[in-house]
Amino acid sequence: MNPASDNVTLNSATDNVTLNSATDNVTLNFASDNVTGAAPEILAAIQAGNSGALMPYGNDDVTRAAEAKVAALFETEADVFFIATGTAANALALSATTPPWGAVFCHGGAHIFDTEAAAPEFYSGGAKLITLEGDNGKIAPETLEAAIADAQIGNVHHVQPACVSITQATETGSVYSLDEVSAIAKVCKAHGLTLHMDGSRFSNAAAALGCSAADVTWKAGVDVLSFGATKNGALSAEAVVFFDRELGKDFGYRRKRGGHLFSKMRFLSVQWDAYLTDDLWLRNAAHANAMARRLTDGLCALPGAANSQSVDANIAFPKLPRAVIDGLKQDGYLFYERGGDNVIRLVCSFATTADDVDALIDAAKRHA
Amino acid sequence: MNPASDNVTLNSATDNVTLNSATDNVTLNFASDNVTGAAPEILAAIQAGNSGALMPYGNDDVTRAAEAKVAALFETEADVFFIATGTAANALALSATTPPWGAVFCHGGAHIFDTEAAAPEFYSGGAKLITLEGDNGKIAPETLEAAIADAQIGNVHHVQPACVSITQATETGSVYSLDEVSAIAKVCKAHGLTLHMDGSRFSNAAAALGCSAADVTWKAGVDVLSFGATKNGALSAEAVVFFDRELGKDFGYRRKRGGHLFSKMRFLSVQWDAYLTDDLWLRNAAHANAMARRLTDGLCALPGAANSQSVDANIAFPKLPRAVIDGLKQDGYLFYERGGDNVIRLVCSFATTADDVDALIDAAKRHA
Amino acid sequence: MNPASDNVTLNSATDNVTLNSATDNVTLNFASDNVTGAAPEILAAIQAGNSGALMPYGNDDVTRAAEAKVAALFETEADVFFIATGTAANALALSATTPPWGAVFCHGGAHIFDTEAAAPEFYSGGAKLITLEGDNGKIAPETLEAAIADAQIGNVHHVQPACVSITQATETGSVYSLDEVSAIAKVCKAHGLTLHMDGSRFSNAAAALGCSAADVTWKAGVDVLSFGATKNGALSAEAVVFFDRELGKDFGYRRKRGGHLFSKMRFLSVQWDAYLTDDLWLRNAAHANAMARRLTDGLCALPGAANSQSVDANIAFPKLPRAVIDGLKQDGYLFYERGGDNVIRLVCSFATTADDVDALIDAAKRHA
Amino acid sequence: MNPASDNVTLNSATDNVTLNSATDNVTLNFASDNVTGAAPEILAAIQAGNSGALMPYGNDDVTRAAEAKVAALFETEADVFFIATGTAANALALSATTPPWGAVFCHGGAHIFDTEAAAPEFYSGGAKLITLEGDNGKIAPETLEAAIADAQIGNVHHVQPACVSITQATETGSVYSLDEVSAIAKVCKAHGLTLHMDGSRFSNAAAALGCSAADVTWKAGVDVLSFGATKNGALSAEAVVFFDRELGKDFGYRRKRGGHLFSKMRFLSVQWDAYLTDDLWLRNAAHANAMARRLTDGLCALPGAANSQSVDANIAFPKLPRAVIDGLKQDGYLFYERGGDNVIRLVCSFATTADDVDALIDAAKRHA
Repeated sequence: MNPASDNVTLNSATDNVTLNSATDNVTLNFASDNVTGAAPEILAAIQAGNSGALMPYGNDDVTRAAEAKVAALFETEADVFFIATGTAANALALSATTPPWGAVFCHGGAHIFDTEAAAPEFYSGGAKLITLEGDNGKIAPETLEAAIADAQIGNVHHVQPACVSITQATETGSVYSLDEVSAIAKVCKAHGLTLHMDGSRFSNAAAALGCSAADVTWKAGVDVLSFGATKNGALSAEAVVFFDRELGKDFGYRRKRGGHLFSKMRFLSVQWDAYLTDDLWLRNAAHANAMARRLTDGLCALPGAANSQSVDANIAFPKLPRAVIDGLKQDGYLFYERGGDNVIRLVCSFATTADDVDALIDAAKRHA
Repeated sequence: MNPASDNVTLNSATDNVTLNSATDNVTLNFASDNVTGAAPEILAAIQAGNSGALMPYGNDDVTRAAEAKVAALFETEADVFFIATGTAANALALSATTPPWGAVFCHGGAHIFDTEAAAPEFYSGGAKLITLEGDNGKIAPETLEAAIADAQIGNVHHVQPACVSITQATETGSVYSLDEVSAIAKVCKAHGLTLHMDGSRFSNAAAALGCSAADVTWKAGVDVLSFGATKNGALSAEAVVFFDRELGKDFGYRRKRGGHLFSKMRFLSVQWDAYLTDDLWLRNAAHANAMARRLTDGLCALPGAANSQSVDANIAFPKLPRAVIDGLKQDGYLFYERGGDNVIRLVCSFATTADDVDALIDAAKRHA
Repeated sequence: MNPASDNVTLNSATDNVTLNSATDNVTLNFASDNVTGAAPEILAAIQAGNSGALMPYGNDDVTRAAEAKVAALFETEADVFFIATGTAANALALSATTPPWGAVFCHGGAHIFDTEAAAPEFYSGGAKLITLEGDNGKIAPETLEAAIADAQIGNVHHVQPACVSITQATETGSVYSLDEVSAIAKVCKAHGLTLHMDGSRFSNAAAALGCSAADVTWKAGVDVLSFGATKNGALSAEAVVFFDRELGKDFGYRRKRGGHLFSKMRFLSVQWDAYLTDDLWLRNAAHANAMARRLTDGLCALPGAANSQSVDANIAFPKLPRAVIDGLKQDGYLFYERGGDNVIRLVCSFATTADDVDALIDAAKRHA
Repeated sequence: MNPASDNVTLNSATDNVTLNSATDNVTLNFASDNVTGAAPEILAAIQAGNSGALMPYGNDDVTRAAEAKVAALFETEADVFFIATGTAANALALSATTPPWGAVFCHGGAHIFDTEAAAPEFYSGGAKLITLEGDNGKIAPETLEAAIADAQIGNVHHVQPACVSITQATETGSVYSLDEVSAIAKVCKAHGLTLHMDGSRFSNAAAALGCSAADVTWKAGVDVLSFGATKNGALSAEAVVFFDRELGKDFGYRRKRGGHLFSKMRFLSVQWDAYLTDDLWLRNAAHANAMARRLTDGLCALPGAANSQSVDANIAFPKLPRAVIDGLKQDGYLFYERGGDNVIRLVCSFATTADDVDALIDAAKRHA
């Protein structure tokens, strides 16, 4: 089970509990944006892509076209690699940015540090993730600059700064502005560090910012992006996008030896094709963001309720009266609770409906 | 592109060639059993499994039921883990059987040695694969016994025998008999080695042997199985099955840190459920095997043709006159050729039809 | 160059500076306890051990006797392995305590975290070091208990607590009392964690505590010790001592594949024999401790000076007037300076004489 | 215990036997060239280098001078790193030549493949050693060329040729001629592979060839050398010498995180200084070579005896009547025996005297 990185706790007694039947009720489950299945457009694409013979392992035109379509979204010559899971996308991408004696700077609440079971360390051969603190799940450029200054560059006794990884949108539902990304990138460039973006919720960030995919990535200084589609409607589809193509030149070998090269690659490729067709990626994300906003607005209007932090993307963190939280649990709602302060985490997805949201708000009103 | 391990060469000029449009013609493509899409039953299961909310990362009843169904197929209490790729299934399984200073014995033509880009070495932290020779892609127990005798057990300068990996069906399309597996297992047990079975074509082997899944695995002494479904009709679904449950106790951590734990695990689980429903696994495999037999019989009846080796499973290796091979290529047929001796490799799958086979035989007759 | 973990800075302009000729003057160099050569008893032992033929790689009676002598010092049946460097001793020892998906808790200033270039991550295959804060370079049991409580045990997304590593004497020159070690060990045992002690200055700690080697290790709950001799008079000699012998059973393979098994092992063995003969280990350490005490007493008596922290072992951290610090530098004294607060680090060794100490104090008086 | 790579077996019953007191008799022990202590010149240098303070970890003038002296021996601008063991020198050097998905070609009898407990795999992160066969422990350029041709370059399913490692002098006591090294180097250069030389007995090879250190290394195309001193008189001292300095640029980090950076580095440095002073390296090696030649000539003159292979360096492989072998064992001589063919391995060192050799020959005569 996937606990958030900020110590929220699922409202079931333990993470290992057998969940009651209510949990397959999509209208009650706000635990994560991966509790749903896939978007219908994605499923249709898989069905449509099934016929005919294609050479395996990505040596097929469908895959080449989908890779090109991702690069085109970014309006550049990026190298694109499809991967099935977010952890693999992050760990493999990071392994291309750091030697085993390197340091990757990330936020203390970063998924790569907290919730990936040392996958980055595994894929990098033992590099060290060094955590930085910052509000709203974000790293500030000054904090990064100070950490680099302390890093004893050139001293063999110490891991050497190699990469910065930022999460966009962050694990706490905030979004880096273009200026914030650029400021971090500037520090990276000044010290020869690679800038990686964990974009497991990249679509939500792009939708929130209202900017192009290029603007918030390579144009702002990002060298490599883990671009997630799974949380936002895919069955299982992530992409690693190298804007710095030199970084990606050996990635095919990395992916294969990690066991992440699919034989029937077409099934990842058609998901990506569908995801980028008719702006599905943006539409799904904008919808999920709007649902989180609607939830926040509705819940925070309750007496005794308040918004605990900015809600930029698809995650709401309302602070609610204890009775409301307990009442929602009684109703069968499923969500994680942040320890001790009556803040709960509610995650919306492409599949969350306005009716689902309103029903939750109504339920909360009853308990208020 | 996936070259076979026995030095067959694709009839295109190079592995990196852009294949002509004929390659999406399933009736012409005998290059591998993963050039097809998924079986209709598998796709239907994915569609049916899409609705409703389920907790992610396998913490759902659908997954638990599918895991139990795999164990039930083997009539025992095995621990079952779903994985998306065969390379990952093998490398992760092997990593549970050997320390980094251990040796894994395998055949010189084994996929784990030859075609997995050092994934087993990566996942095991640097263990050594030691190859043994043997006819028909099989290891003989005497060869294994001799290798163990040479291994300098207890001597810190040498890697220590830890595991034996056999492929069932083998890379050359042969199948170990129950007695052959048992004989190897006996040597393993005598020396405290784990027996791993790479079952990327396990279904084809079981169909060929006509025995139960239990008979050819744990009852014959296999400790851990990489059970493949992808080549035989799944979209992407493999399972690691631990009959020795002590070996599997940390496997959840291994899978996660390898980035192989799916968030929307349901989509692997429903494939497995469908694969084992109404004997789909066996029916598909038996069909593919029959097609390879039909191909062999038809082609070897041609003047100047001969069967180069036993055809137990779904791969045919006929030796054909040069003019026939060249003619088939001219017709657009796609297959790998074994260097220099006019033997070609033709792989059949669940999707290969009797008409496809007969058409190829007819074409060959024309060229003879 | 080896910066201390607490951000002290060598008084040369940079760590990479070419040092002036004064630096080979042992009476002026207080930068570290490894700036000296070896103790005369150690050198004599190497000379004496040179003659005759001995089977290599530790298969000799001299090595077996020295290993037994170390175990006897601890009055138990420990397994003992000789190693040449402290980093290797720590990293190899830790690798025996944690799986690659494990967590090692240590102090934020621990040498293993800060100054070993990710060697523990390398040897463990990517395990994560999780730092805890605490006064005087020590971990408090409550802090450890809280960290374990947060660790999400059994959750595959998170590294799993496996080991606690404490440094004795600590990097800041303090010493854990027997009760403090026991209290940490108690937490470890309650949660099934291994307790490792980085004893690169173990002799200084034992001398300071006035207890037996057994008392402060396995009797207090330590499972494995990195026992250093190099800083306290050896040429290059460390030992990994497994009180929990099950942990050590594969250590011979770990040492060999790390390239740390010496062919002419006798030369490590005779150093250990000499180190434990006539209490050389304790005598040297007690002397170094006394010199640090003498330095502290002398310097802190100066006007405007103060002791910045407890001085338990062989490192003094006096806070001095700026003019004194600058004056000592002018005199050619070599030491690290802690950033910004006028605290300097002065390390004494077996070779530091009372005259050296008094000369430094006298010089400081002149500058006061 | 260090078994030779060519399956010779020590004449004691097992490798783990407790050896009798005769084994410390240097005149009877021909088991290896590391059964002796250090040469007197080396010990004297350690004694002389002990006084004074020096900054640790190689940041001292003694080390810089010794590194420069090694480079000067090779008449070039090589980067030189001191290491204590041969396994570490090889594994670390190889790790700089190959990515984890790379292949290192070596002879089937190579120490790196057979007798280093997967250290190269460990340090390289899982690269694969691919063995080639060849007479006298040597790789032929044609064999190498054929292996590269088979390697499927650019195909992600296969490890990619990265490095060739040759042993000079070989494990069977032969020596590559300059032309032989150049021919291999030519193949390497043609395919972009690095050429590594395992020179654990480099001095013996250079003495045998009568050429300069430069001639048989970088001038012949070697990119990186593991230069051993331990077997030829040092206490424990090896050097990794990068002629291709780009390869060595991160080596300081590799050495440190492997735990191979000595704090009291002076003690490695002074060994190297002494080893290269007054041609000690060459004199010791030439002497050992001459002793092996003398042994061979004397023993092969016996009735029924013969030389089994060319003796270029310091290892003799005479084939002797069974009675002679058994008689020598009875006398207490210690050596490895090659299985089944009455060939024994006798290793001479700098410490082997002509009297020792003649005594052995006389003993053999008595038993003939």
